[in-house]
Amino acid sequence: MIISTKRGTPQEELQKIISGFEAQGLSVTLIQGTDYNVFGLVGDTTKLDEKIVAANPWVDSVTRVAAPYKKANRLFHQEDSVIDVAGIKIGGKEKIVVIGGPCSVEGEESTIEIAKAVKAAGGSMLRGGAYKPRTSPYAFQGLGTEGILDMVKAREITGLPIVSELMSEDRIDEFEEYVDLVQIGARNMQNFQLLKAVGKMKKPVLLKRGLANTIEEWIMSAEYIMAGGNENVIFCERGIRTFEKYTRNTLDLSVIPIIKEKTHLPIIIDPSHATGNWKYVESMSLAAIAAGADGLIIEVHPDPEHAWSDGAQSLKPDRFREVIEKGRPIAQVIGRNL
Amino acid sequence: MIISTKRGTPQEELQKIISGFEAQGLSVTLIQGTDYNVFGLVGDTTKLDEKIVAANPWVDSVTRVAAPYKKANRLFHQEDSVIDVAGIKIGGKEKIVVIGGPCSVEGEESTIEIAKAVKAAGGSMLRGGAYKPRTSPYAFQGLGTEGILDMVKAREITGLPIVSELMSEDRIDEFEEYVDLVQIGARNMQNFQLLKAVGKMKKPVLLKRGLANTIEEWIMSAEYIMAGGNENVIFCERGIRTFEKYTRNTLDLSVIPIIKEKTHLPIIIDPSHATGNWKYVESMSLAAIAAGADGLIIEVHPDPEHAWSDGAQSLKPDRFREVIEKGRPIAQVIGRNL
Amino acid sequence: MIISTKRGTPQEELQKIISGFEAQGLSVTLIQGTDYNVFGLVGDTTKLDEKIVAANPWVDSVTRVAAPYKKANRLFHQEDSVIDVAGIKIGGKEKIVVIGGPCSVEGEESTIEIAKAVKAAGGSMLRGGAYKPRTSPYAFQGLGTEGILDMVKAREITGLPIVSELMSEDRIDEFEEYVDLVQIGARNMQNFQLLKAVGKMKKPVLLKRGLANTIEEWIMSAEYIMAGGNENVIFCERGIRTFEKYTRNTLDLSVIPIIKEKTHLPIIIDPSHATGNWKYVESMSLAAIAAGADGLIIEVHPDPEHAWSDGAQSLKPDRFREVIEKGRPIAQVIGRNL
Amino acid sequence: MIISTKRGTPQEELQKIISGFEAQGLSVTLIQGTDYNVFGLVGDTTKLDEKIVAANPWVDSVTRVAAPYKKANRLFHQEDSVIDVAGIKIGGKEKIVVIGGPCSVEGEESTIEIAKAVKAAGGSMLRGGAYKPRTSPYAFQGLGTEGILDMVKAREITGLPIVSELMSEDRIDEFEEYVDLVQIGARNMQNFQLLKAVGKMKKPVLLKRGLANTIEEWIMSAEYIMAGGNENVIFCERGIRTFEKYTRNTLDLSVIPIIKEKTHLPIIIDPSHATGNWKYVESMSLAAIAAGADGLIIEVHPDPEHAWSDGAQSLKPDRFREVIEKGRPIAQVIGRNL
Repeated sequence: MIISTKRGTPQEELQKIISGFEAQGLSVTLIQGTDYNVFGLVGDTTKLDEKIVAANPWVDSVTRVAAPYKKANRLFHQEDSVIDVAGIKIGGKEKIVVIGGPCSVEGEESTIEIAKAVKAAGGSMLRGGAYKPRTSPYAFQGLGTEGILDMVKAREITGLPIVSELMSEDRIDEFEEYVDLVQIGARNMQNFQLLKAVGKMKKPVLLKRGLANTIEEWIMSAEYIMAGGNENVIFCERGIRTFEKYTRNTLDLSVIPIIKEKTHLPIIIDPSHATGNWKYVESMSLAAIAAGADGLIIEVHPDPEHAWSDGAQSLKPDRFREVIEKGRPIAQVIGRNL
Repeated sequence: MIISTKRGTPQEELQKIISGFEAQGLSVTLIQGTDYNVFGLVGDTTKLDEKIVAANPWVDSVTRVAAPYKKANRLFHQEDSVIDVAGIKIGGKEKIVVIGGPCSVEGEESTIEIAKAVKAAGGSMLRGGAYKPRTSPYAFQGLGTEGILDMVKAREITGLPIVSELMSEDRIDEFEEYVDLVQIGARNMQNFQLLKAVGKMKKPVLLKRGLANTIEEWIMSAEYIMAGGNENVIFCERGIRTFEKYTRNTLDLSVIPIIKEKTHLPIIIDPSHATGNWKYVESMSLAAIAAGADGLIIEVHPDPEHAWSDGAQSLKPDRFREVIEKGRPIAQVIGRNL
Repeated sequence: MIISTKRGTPQEELQKIISGFEAQGLSVTLIQGTDYNVFGLVGDTTKLDEKIVAANPWVDSVTRVAAPYKKANRLFHQEDSVIDVAGIKIGGKEKIVVIGGPCSVEGEESTIEIAKAVKAAGGSMLRGGAYKPRTSPYAFQGLGTEGILDMVKAREITGLPIVSELMSEDRIDEFEEYVDLVQIGARNMQNFQLLKAVGKMKKPVLLKRGLANTIEEWIMSAEYIMAGGNENVIFCERGIRTFEKYTRNTLDLSVIPIIKEKTHLPIIIDPSHATGNWKYVESMSLAAIAAGADGLIIEVHPDPEHAWSDGAQSLKPDRFREVIEKGRPIAQVIGRNL
Repeated sequence: MIISTKRGTPQEELQKIISGFEAQGLSVTLIQGTDYNVFGLVGDTTKLDEKIVAANPWVDSVTRVAAPYKKANRLFHQEDSVIDVAGIKIGGKEKIVVIGGPCSVEGEESTIEIAKAVKAAGGSMLRGGAYKPRTSPYAFQGLGTEGILDMVKAREITGLPIVSELMSEDRIDEFEEYVDLVQIGARNMQNFQLLKAVGKMKKPVLLKRGLANTIEEWIMSAEYIMAGGNENVIFCERGIRTFEKYTRNTLDLSVIPIIKEKTHLPIIIDPSHATGNWKYVESMSLAAIAAGADGLIIEVHPDPEHAWSDGAQSLKPDRFREVIEKGRPIAQVIGRNL
């Protein structure tokens, strides 16, 4: 950590600051400049709070040099982590995983039908929302437990592991029992209570990026889960909020090489929520594969016009199959299978 | 709601769309243009989901004309709502309320000391964090129940009602029993489970704006709470995320006239979190008063350099008193007291 | 264009608004709702200014249904436009073009050396900055005319057409004479005087997207150039400003399918400025090809550590060659050559 | 400047970096950490380019400690600069200046009428656009020279100095001759050619903040003008682009204390463009005064519904007068006159 102090800071104040850090076991080097003095701290600074340091009125700025995350940090864990989701392996050089399914679960029959179509097209996992985060209290909020059980039924028939969003600590037992991959949604990326609770679960976690969060904040949310004991975290980019109006969000594919550089964890891409428009899903899926994503999560619905939510961004099963088929040779170019 | 369809949409598809809306009790007018056709829907469209409508492949765009909120909407509730927080009235033409206190509660003694200073300076409510949303799992997470009880003690001695942040449904009973004004933090503004739970509480709610949320989304979160039965919601602006680096966030004071135009609820301003720097708190507080805010919530700490969190943005009691004293004549100019 | 008026707008005011539009040759349909009235306008509304319409105090909101651009609009020009840059064809189903070169031109010798390397690696055009937009007045501002002539020399030797940024109307004659593809930089995307001037040039234009501009604003800037008479515009995405700190900007690849849907013009991608880091250039280049880009513009420098600007984002010639070689089979998957 | 290098950087590479900086006359201190090495540079680093330093593959991050601006920096110029605009003094403890006028000049008669109304209401300068930056090439582009001459006429009659936007180097002679305060618009804030040209003018400059620019970038644009020799720069905040849809832009009033802390130059506020809605202009004007602004620039039009541009955000003269009258006692509270 680098701390600069203001012009004219008295010698005794500089000494007081130095003593304070040394008392915390850090070693301090002072660089005296013309208009500023700068301290460099060496040691474990992850527990230091920048804002507390900055509260000293003689301090001008505080810069963290070392990343604030440890368990997720590739610096301390060189090999890729491969996460096992009910037998499906995600990450490293494993096969690129494709997850398909409806935005909202709409009943047993339709869920089974979609699951079969996802499997037939080459998908290897089923997604579906039973608890839905909706901006309006008057909108459909999901089928709840019934929806989870519909997915369980579809898993029994197709063998596809299931992924669904957990919105509340209240439902942790239900998800621990039934769901294979527990999704934390974008709006809950910094719901720290929920992250702590999920950190105690045994099931792997799919951590979506918040709408306006930096990659560092996202990794820190993974760190929350890992610090709780659950190291099976998969990142999921689903677009960030920008000024653009022609898409629902802006898909940030540069997260793929960055997450792989900074952490050892896998990353998958959700082109459906990112663009909000089925017409852009194929090109963004192929781009994600070319950029090195470990997987895709795509909304699939046989009759998007009558889907209960987000039909505009859902692919029909035929188009979903096409995406997978076009993606295969691209995966091979970069040394992966799909 | 206004729906435009693509050039070349067949007559039968147009007819199908019309019949669909009419079946939901809406009346439909069709405007035929050169390159587009446009439908206007009349009736209660709050339950229609734009994204479902947009899923129709012939639909080009969907625009909501009426606001999606009802209970918070001034259109249906012309008079200002005045919220009673343990006897302190907030909103309408009531006295502007000033809430002061530490970012984190740090023990009984210091909480009582700060509460006395806040009261002596002219503050009328005590803030303090017992459950802290922290980006890092390694940072101090708050004193929890102990912190709440420290505040209760300070209330017993000073008579100041207390406000604190609720982060989890688990703690609802504790807050219902002890806390006078229940704060929902920025990161939980769209934690819909928590909003629903708070909608069943009897205590008034201070709803902070999310870091990157629009005013409409913010009002919709208030609507969640109100739809649950708790109509005592106070908005709190605390700065939004922008590209600016010289401040922690960017304080958006234009929310004051907008919230007052669109809703009947009160709004207070948090200049401490918005700017992240005590040096800017006074000018932003005076600006908020001039713009018509119903209150201020300001971080106060007798020794900011040794505060457990956010010292850089805390005022010492003397400066807090100065803000209130300078604010009084400004309040009078716009017909309010402070 | 759709116009909603406020509850309680008197009948005579509604009539006045209708007459006003009819006087401009537009046909008007009125939809009477419960809380709002809505007008639909049919006819050529591109010349109507939303803000003037919204100035009427009875008007509540104004929504444009038809796109505000005409010459760039695919609706009125179904086939892809293929732009000819000194014999190199860009767009449609033509070969994907790869442009390489230094951020700043650094002298004749080094420019020729880089041009040869770009050509040997498979690049088909040379980029180089002679006039540099720099945030600081104290930073190197480019070699100016001398830099342009260095590029001309490199073209003579290698045959590669040259692209360079024009920052001022003063230099239009120079660019018309020497440069094959005239770049308008991100910071000048809405320098409307410059756009008008370039609209009268005979050379094709590479229009970079502004740092915080929407796609619609970007297309409108192309429309400025086209309205002036120069219809040879190529879009160039170079990343937008977001909250992310691990990259210089955020590359938005979803612009590729969108520009191709909304307009008939080609689009190329600049992964160097977008990411600001050579380590991410390969993956973003392959992703751009997979997403359907018509070209790439990549910074290449034999000795990035000693480049006069932006070395951190420049590829050495060997890595540039690798990007092209890996890109080729991906291009074939989507039916293109590279 | 602080530079951190990667774990495992060889000793000889560290030495090479140190020698490189020392050769530039900088003194270098090396701090060896566990996972990183950090260098501190002391000396004049304003000419160092962060991106060139970062191009070294062993360098991990580069942080500037000292501000990159000198002439605008309060550190080197402690007293407030007071700018003289044709006899009107702006800044320091001078009277708060209020500038009023139409968005676009619409002819001699109406300009004189508005100028008289502005003066009668207590305004001390006249604004008016003759060259208009419009997103659409099909929208009204301003009256040009004729509009400037209309304003000159209004100045002759009322004595009010005039301010107008300069969009092109071509018009510098015209502005030098006729205009008292030369405005650089938001979209040209980083049109560096224009900034350089204006730096050679003798007239003071009103520098609007770009739509998505940081305060540091804004100060750097002032530095461009000052480095050219023209030190009479006044900042003008006009709102920044955010995700908010209820306002045209988001007014950032925290710039007032920040500009006054970091620089010695005056700052005025434009609540009309910031909010885009006349209803919010009064509250934002009063807030700006309370926050310490040196002036306001407000759109005034006698018949906003028929204004040629931006009528929705224009005040009628009566309301303009009210703003000034309410603002006076607020100015007094903070020790200023209006």
